[in-house]
Amino acid sequence: MILNLTEYLGACRAEIDAALDAVLPVPPACPPRIAEAMRYSLMAGGKRFRPILTLAAGDAVHEATDQPSSRASILPIACAIELIHTYSLVHDDLPAMDDDTLRRGRPTAHVVYGDALAILSGDGLLTEAFGLLARPAPAGEAPAARRLRAIAVIATAAGAAGMVGGQAIDIEASGIHAADRDRPTPTLHADGLRAMHQRKTGALITAAAVSGAIMAGGDEAIIDAIDRYAGHLGLAFQIVDDILDVEGAADELGKTAGKDAAAGKLTYPALFGLEASRRQAAEAAVLAQDALRAAHVTGRLAEIADWIVSRTH
Amino acid sequence: MILNLTEYLGACRAEIDAALDAVLPVPPACPPRIAEAMRYSLMAGGKRFRPILTLAAGDAVHEATDQPSSRASILPIACAIELIHTYSLVHDDLPAMDDDTLRRGRPTAHVVYGDALAILSGDGLLTEAFGLLARPAPAGEAPAARRLRAIAVIATAAGAAGMVGGQAIDIEASGIHAADRDRPTPTLHADGLRAMHQRKTGALITAAAVSGAIMAGGDEAIIDAIDRYAGHLGLAFQIVDDILDVEGAADELGKTAGKDAAAGKLTYPALFGLEASRRQAAEAAVLAQDALRAAHVTGRLAEIADWIVSRTH
Repeated sequence: MILNLTEYLGACRAEIDAALDAVLPVPPACPPRIAEAMRYSLMAGGKRFRPILTLAAGDAVHEATDQPSSRASILPIACAIELIHTYSLVHDDLPAMDDDTLRRGRPTAHVVYGDALAILSGDGLLTEAFGLLARPAPAGEAPAARRLRAIAVIATAAGAAGMVGGQAIDIEASGIHAADRDRPTPTLHADGLRAMHQRKTGALITAAAVSGAIMAGGDEAIIDAIDRYAGHLGLAFQIVDDILDVEGAADELGKTAGKDAAAGKLTYPALFGLEASRRQAAEAAVLAQDALRAAHVTGRLAEIADWIVSRTH
Repeated sequence: MILNLTEYLGACRAEIDAALDAVLPVPPACPPRIAEAMRYSLMAGGKRFRPILTLAAGDAVHEATDQPSSRASILPIACAIELIHTYSLVHDDLPAMDDDTLRRGRPTAHVVYGDALAILSGDGLLTEAFGLLARPAPAGEAPAARRLRAIAVIATAAGAAGMVGGQAIDIEASGIHAADRDRPTPTLHADGLRAMHQRKTGALITAAAVSGAIMAGGDEAIIDAIDRYAGHLGLAFQIVDDILDVEGAADELGKTAGKDAAAGKLTYPALFGLEASRRQAAEAAVLAQDALRAAHVTGRLAEIADWIVSRTH
């Protein structure tokens, strides 16, 4: 039976949610309150876009290499990516950072658990992601060298040269949190905006796809094609995110809408207008699909690019 | 030439400092301000006790197995342990947590860089630790399976079932940061104090030694002996830390002295008195040395236990 894209995404999401449900440490190994705080943020729902991308990249490699589709070794990677994404949201929402009180339709972690436990729950989610990647998996063990390579790709994307660095640039550009307020606030323009987003959201999106391809045993040509695909996809995703922040209602987005504009953050619509932003997102999706086509990569990745551009939340 | 312990520790420290100096991402790969903040905390000095323990455990395994002492594959582990220790200090010092302004004799990261960048620099240090463990090392590559096992050990020790969980218990017990202030504050007694410290400091100290033994290729018997040694050593270390907090002057400790007592935190001297605390530390060191002797482990680990008990800062 061939699933349509909505069915495929739903099946992936169900598989990911079930796997996530089982990955966090629980009492008595883990103190109850921190276990609860980590779980609160991780199981709050969400699109699961990044881990779906990991599974879809793995599926594409399996299809290209005529292997049976086996997700046993890909799911821990998908879960680790979602743990890292979730930790980044928990920390970004802190009063010391973006000071947001609503996320995925619920009060943010620091509102419920206090700042200290929110910081610690983020630390715990990040650390657990790497534990998950390194620990022996119950089934479908991939070769150790492949797993190490995936860990390295993910750590580089999530670290100071990637996601953490992007958030640091964003915080600095917003200029409201500097300890020494006499320092001039750097201003972001088009190139800077793209570079900031490439780190802040693009790097982990790319790592999500690439690590899935690595774990599935893809050769360098297919890994490289998926890498380029995901680069364009990440840009499309971010532009659409900015558009939805302008257009969206809080109840649809599950987070505070209009927040970026209110904070004076530079966004694609603010810089280029809504129409041109929509066009740029569509163009990025086409470039993403071109990268797949050039390397004869089939599977759901091309459709996922369409989904990202047309999403409404 | 046989080095005395002071010379051995000095040589280890120099090797670790040189290695740490080279491990962090630098501009332009990493945005300059976050690179600076990470470096500020990492290169602030410190005893380097944990990474020394990693090197010494590796040396002990090499000695026991008649291998030439090669530190090329052990040093990345030692550096990763110190990155994780440093990130934990940066986050623990935050206003939302222990609110400390002095660390290793210098203003804490959040005082210099603001809370947001301090949080992010901690996130960056933690992430970089795992990148370091997974990336191909320029020399002395250990087998991939051994490296994965070391990563898993370190992640478990650093995560919510270990160090992060211990800090969460500590925060909860201090009771001053709870979001819902109506919840009763849990009170720690002797058993709880030990369990909290076992997670908060003991787990990473044990992982430091065990991961060094794993990477050096120790068999299960020697890894197990070093595991038990480090468990006792971690307890001794913590008791001495508490004693020094009571006795020490800020300039010697490089951090705010008397802080724990002032915060109403339960400490060994508060619970047992100074004399009994000193005796417990000495007993833990003897048990640590017994564990080594029972498995015929030689090298510097036994002397390191003496050093820990007799240290004055």
